[in-house]
Amino acid sequence: MEGSDLLFHVDGKLVPAAEATVNVRDRGFMYGDAAFETLRVYGGAPFEWEAHADRLRRTCGTLGFADALPPAEDLRERVVETVTANDLSDAYTKLSVTRGVQPGKLTPDKAVDPTIVVFVSPLPRGGVDGERVWDGSARLATVDAQSVPDAAVPADTKTHNYLDGIIARLQIRGTDNDEALRRDAEGSLTEGATSNVFFVEDGRLLTPTADLPLLAGVTRQVVLELANEAGVPVETGRYGPERVRNADEVFVTNSTWEIRPVERVDEATFDVGLRGVTRHVQPFTRANTARRVSRCDTELRPTV
Amino acid sequence: MEGSDLLFHVDGKLVPAAEATVNVRDRGFMYGDAAFETLRVYGGAPFEWEAHADRLRRTCGTLGFADALPPAEDLRERVVETVTANDLSDAYTKLSVTRGVQPGKLTPDKAVDPTIVVFVSPLPRGGVDGERVWDGSARLATVDAQSVPDAAVPADTKTHNYLDGIIARLQIRGTDNDEALRRDAEGSLTEGATSNVFFVEDGRLLTPTADLPLLAGVTRQVVLELANEAGVPVETGRYGPERVRNADEVFVTNSTWEIRPVERVDEATFDVGLRGVTRHVQPFTRANTARRVSRCDTELRPTV
Repeated sequence: MEGSDLLFHVDGKLVPAAEATVNVRDRGFMYGDAAFETLRVYGGAPFEWEAHADRLRRTCGTLGFADALPPAEDLRERVVETVTANDLSDAYTKLSVTRGVQPGKLTPDKAVDPTIVVFVSPLPRGGVDGERVWDGSARLATVDAQSVPDAAVPADTKTHNYLDGIIARLQIRGTDNDEALRRDAEGSLTEGATSNVFFVEDGRLLTPTADLPLLAGVTRQVVLELANEAGVPVETGRYGPERVRNADEVFVTNSTWEIRPVERVDEATFDVGLRGVTRHVQPFTRANTARRVSRCDTELRPTV
Repeated sequence: MEGSDLLFHVDGKLVPAAEATVNVRDRGFMYGDAAFETLRVYGGAPFEWEAHADRLRRTCGTLGFADALPPAEDLRERVVETVTANDLSDAYTKLSVTRGVQPGKLTPDKAVDPTIVVFVSPLPRGGVDGERVWDGSARLATVDAQSVPDAAVPADTKTHNYLDGIIARLQIRGTDNDEALRRDAEGSLTEGATSNVFFVEDGRLLTPTADLPLLAGVTRQVVLELANEAGVPVETGRYGPERVRNADEVFVTNSTWEIRPVERVDEATFDVGLRGVTRHVQPFTRANTARRVSRCDTELRPTV
């Protein structure tokens, strides 16, 4: 998140990023006691806003402070204001809501005055013919670091507790891999550190089930819906890494990367390019843009 | 952590707590990408400093930025300076070291400019006849929230990712319980949200083994050493909650509480008071103070 001349939104005020601060007693800093969403803004409008707003509310509910969350429309305005104030139209944004500063120690008070931050950085539109936000197709490595089980911290919360993902990424630091694939304790693939994984077998699209400890991303859901609309058979389940290594196509998804083709999983290599099933589920082909446009609240430029 | 007229130590400067801030791009805020220690200061000197400094270095090592940690003596001076600047002699302090602000996203850069914060608040000395820092003996409840397994995030790291403990505490919020006892996936007791648990059976002192996913606290280690010195047989192992419920004595430990007797575990109740084995392992009885004084680097007032 570079760019110290950017304006961030902190508790209702636009401030230069270099001066965007929180108190060290903020529980978001002390304990990672905070929820967040990473949002793409296309043409000034947050993509899949309702899905993000719903998940943010669910996360805050699990953390016990959903009541303190402002209405979704208020949050959306903060995101749009931030993007507009930076003279951006297409952007990466991150919306964080912490439990704020509270008296006492670990056990949270019911009275919550949340700290609300919008981070922003320029990000090209992406899509099929747009500027790639990622540096080439992805190389994935299966790592030993496991996903945190739901019984400890529910995986469908998106929080500032991100060390499990950082530890997974540390296990590929210094290699040419872009993403670390994790498994649960039983060896089923769950997700990358910041992405969901999809693979194609004989024209069918497969991805780990959300019953596993993984964060079912908004882009994952968009891809599943596009696959259904395009008549691509979809299966969710429990798969070991060898299923992915033996697949016909592999890609990873998140809001920033959108769909990123995968050229390698461990030692297995793949032809990449917008081919086969991967092409059908691209959110920004002409056909799919038309399908998705109402959910984006903006006119998306069809790119193919 | 009340008291806005206190001075905190942020990156080498003493600042009023209300103005003690970190940038929102600090990885300690964004991801909980930070290590910390909670330290008691008695008579102006950090208690068990070497044990805390060693563990902080281990945590930073697991997080991949041990090289960026200043020498232990530098860190100790920051703690002492903070306590002195607040005209305190006995205090609670928390020393946090984050990976700081970095370019890029989740994968950490090797170049680390850490953010170093010392929090402080007044805390009476405690000990046997000192002022109690806790409000009566403790009531514990076994909760469903499980400990994060080592395979996901090593439990011997003390980090700003504290949501597992917060979720455990949320499960007892609104009850009269003080601490939430957690188990691993196999049902073995691990620890409380912020404390280690000990229990006594027929004159023997038992506590869950550090092979389980738990943070083996500095006070836990002090108690084990004191028990050995006092000739109390010690056993570490894997125990279900029923073993603790059927024990003769139960207590919990952490740096803030020192040793806190337990009056209830789920439905089982206990006589409390400084009796039996619990008394033998108190760090601040006359005999044990003499044993520990060299490790505290200060003159502890014997209280019994």
